[in-house]
Amino acid sequence: MKKSLGVGTYALPSPVWVVGTYDAAGKPNLMTAAWGGICNSRPPCIYVSLRKATYSHGNIMARKAYTVSIPSECYVKEADWIGIASGRDTNKFTTTKLTPVKGSTVDAPYVDEFSIVIECRVKEVVELGLHTQFIGEIMDVKAESEVLDARGNIDIEKVRPIIFTPSAGTYHGIGKKIQDAFTTRELKK
Amino acid sequence: MKKSLGVGTYALPSPVWVVGTYDAAGKPNLMTAAWGGICNSRPPCIYVSLRKATYSHGNIMARKAYTVSIPSECYVKEADWIGIASGRDTNKFTTTKLTPVKGSTVDAPYVDEFSIVIECRVKEVVELGLHTQFIGEIMDVKAESEVLDARGNIDIEKVRPIIFTPSAGTYHGIGKKIQDAFTTRELKK
Repeated sequence: MKKSLGVGTYALPSPVWVVGTYDAAGKPNLMTAAWGGICNSRPPCIYVSLRKATYSHGNIMARKAYTVSIPSECYVKEADWIGIASGRDTNKFTTTKLTPVKGSTVDAPYVDEFSIVIECRVKEVVELGLHTQFIGEIMDVKAESEVLDARGNIDIEKVRPIIFTPSAGTYHGIGKKIQDAFTTRELKK
Repeated sequence: MKKSLGVGTYALPSPVWVVGTYDAAGKPNLMTAAWGGICNSRPPCIYVSLRKATYSHGNIMARKAYTVSIPSECYVKEADWIGIASGRDTNKFTTTKLTPVKGSTVDAPYVDEFSIVIECRVKEVVELGLHTQFIGEIMDVKAESEVLDARGNIDIEKVRPIIFTPSAGTYHGIGKKIQDAFTTRELKK
């Protein structure tokens, strides 16, 4: 029997992504976003939704660029802290001892220690209320070779991204492989 | 050392959500979407991105409503098949033996067997290229009481949603809890 929980952002799984930007003085900044996803295949587009109050919001508006660096679960404390602190009064790279690297295709820094990074140029800005949705065209994806499988595809069990659950407010890891996608041609009776 | 993978939709984790709509004749339809996420907190908004060629795309354009039903891993074969077949020439509810229930707040059906369902009214339609992004305002969220924890929050370990990995094309389950979110007030030196 289903029960109404009312209106809320109760969708799962949600990602835990770290968004990299430069401020007006060129200081690299980071923030953690759980509101993000792929939203187009051709051209490949991703988005992150940020509150207008965040320091990163202004940075993206000014430079029209950001990166998404995907932390593995061994960086969960850094990712969680980055989501709490503000870049207005701290240098998040220095405090976390993470290393900023300027994107090769966009005017934004990524986190060198994280195994997957996505460089994005802002394509659409959608105002939705509390959050602004920054839809970015993906200009390049970079990966550490250790997280690729034999065919050169990303192996999620090597990346070990973090899963966020809104409502409960918890972080989980990745579990076992269930099956390959797009293989169920017929359902057994 | 990072290697460029070029331009692609290589973000992870991605969700596996089943989108419910009615067609012009009132037949309930389903499709599986991996391009989806929360994109605003107030008012709560979610999106799914669909190719224009899909039957569901026309249904959403006509009724301005859809639902997101979240399958648990025990329904992975149904979810995978729903993403391969087309509602133009089949009734996906009949074939999967899943039960359509009309949403209480929107003109779209959800899957009764799935433990979490989200009812959405279309708020914005963003054309991005191959896909159209349907941003929906969340009108209600419903959950089976068995997947709620003692505080009434959603317990992801009871929902057991499916994680999709673009690039590799695999489905994974949820792993162990790492920690509570928003608790890392300071990083240890």
